Amino acid sequence: MLTNVRNVRIEWCDCDPAGIIFYPRYFEMFDTSATVLIEHALGMNKIEYLKVYDFAGHPLVEARARFHMPTRYGDEVAIETKLTECGRSSFKIEHRLTKSGTLAVEGFETRVWVARSAGDPQRIKSQPIPDAVRARFAGSGNGA
Amino acid sequence: MLTNVRNVRIEWCDCDPAGIIFYPRYFEMFDTSATVLIEHALGMNKIEYLKVYDFAGHPLVEARARFHMPTRYGDEVAIETKLTECGRSSFKIEHRLTKSGTLAVEGFETRVWVARSAGDPQRIKSQPIPDAVRARFAGSGNGA
Amino acid sequence: MLTNVRNVRIEWCDCDPAGIIFYPRYFEMFDTSATVLIEHALGMNKIEYLKVYDFAGHPLVEARARFHMPTRYGDEVAIETKLTECGRSSFKIEHRLTKSGTLAVEGFETRVWVARSAGDPQRIKSQPIPDAVRARFAGSGNGA
Amino acid sequence: MLTNVRNVRIEWCDCDPAGIIFYPRYFEMFDTSATVLIEHALGMNKIEYLKVYDFAGHPLVEARARFHMPTRYGDEVAIETKLTECGRSSFKIEHRLTKSGTLAVEGFETRVWVARSAGDPQRIKSQPIPDAVRARFAGSGNGA
Repeated sequence: MLTNVRNVRIEWCDCDPAGIIFYPRYFEMFDTSATVLIEHALGMNKIEYLKVYDFAGHPLVEARARFHMPTRYGDEVAIETKLTECGRSSFKIEHRLTKSGTLAVEGFETRVWVARSAGDPQRIKSQPIPDAVRARFAGSGNGA
Repeated sequence: MLTNVRNVRIEWCDCDPAGIIFYPRYFEMFDTSATVLIEHALGMNKIEYLKVYDFAGHPLVEARARFHMPTRYGDEVAIETKLTECGRSSFKIEHRLTKSGTLAVEGFETRVWVARSAGDPQRIKSQPIPDAVRARFAGSGNGA
Repeated sequence: MLTNVRNVRIEWCDCDPAGIIFYPRYFEMFDTSATVLIEHALGMNKIEYLKVYDFAGHPLVEARARFHMPTRYGDEVAIETKLTECGRSSFKIEHRLTKSGTLAVEGFETRVWVARSAGDPQRIKSQPIPDAVRARFAGSGNGA
Repeated sequence: MLTNVRNVRIEWCDCDPAGIIFYPRYFEMFDTSATVLIEHALGMNKIEYLKVYDFAGHPLVEARARFHMPTRYGDEVAIETKLTECGRSSFKIEHRLTKSGTLAVEGFETRVWVARSAGDPQRIKSQPIPDAVRARFAGSGNGA
């Protein structure tokens, strides 16, 4: 199973007047973690893999998070990211954000592989994930 | 049922190199909508109601969104926000973001009413929602 | 002189643990104000005018701000934006952000009109501002 | 002279539909770099030093940046940060952001040492920088 771990410091600019992280920042961190995971799997960065596989991206159709414990400015956290499922045109990614080993946030994403519509480049539609990508998604990442 | 509608323009700074909104921005918009809903219900702004009801906030224990259609720079969208459930110490809020009447994103939040722990102000714990708040939550907002 | 005024509320998510706005948010607001000013001048939105005038944007070569008074969550502010100078390939924009009529922040931007380099689309280079644009920049905006 | 270097990757979420970084993100990065510099100088994190020196922060009175070259998604950049001047109640910090050794952005900040007004905690006013802090600011950081 494709896995990745990133260490992140919660910065002053991530926190709100209550002194805790403003929760949409977690989704930003998860998005970066998901991209890093896919970059490692495909062996190139996002700009490159969008070109090489000639597709328009892997936008989310669903995002979900459970918040177990707040994090604060200065906290050093670890984000473990896993590709948990790969279907025909969609895939699932899970994130576990821990602080000193204790689970603080869980994140769940469902993403689709999309291409621009031939008739209307403003429209995007799902398409099958290429076999070469699927094979790499079945491999293992930097943290496995 | 408490309801609120906000009209928001998707700005250049909300969008990513794919030309569509970067999805964590939706959660920022939903958070602002939730705050506005509660402010209208309680008749004061967030800084004031945190003081008046002497609590530490209403952080999320769960956030979820389903993305049906991307939005882009310049899109004018409407966000309809409803308080759908009010329990003893938690409440649920739902958001429907539409573009020209078509549903683009649904958001779901579960929030808890928390106070700072007497022994350790860094720790927060859930507590019963005051009756006065509960009564106002059962009322109706600016869009109802 | 091209002028525009936007009313903005400082939101919870704009503020930091000190309870005041996190200052880079001002630059986000100023960027939106600058875009709105140019959109009004040219009579179309940014996506459209990038296409119509076939250029790559108007990035900043210099940004500056003076902070006279902090703003806080819930503050209603007004941002007055003016195009103050238009040269051959660059132009200057100034912003005055006021709270209840008192000046809180001044912003100064120098932007260049750029096109993608023919040989390398990753590179951008300044080019003369089209006469049609220059004429519209010499006109007046929605607040004049 | 107090100096610090941070290596930062420009992420997808930092970039706009033009495919280059949205410039207010630089000010976020510079703010984090300034905080890290001060934390290293004082030997504690920001939450702690606000308590130990009993002050309300070091907000900016002026921020300025010159943009020499755009950066893009995936770029690895280095931010070198220096405390260049320390006055009675204000100090200056400069940032040089380079990509592969080439200068991309310069940042300049003037910050003041502020305390909450005794009569009105919503108001902040400048006050002399403590001698102990001044002595540490005259020392050297992790990159010197």
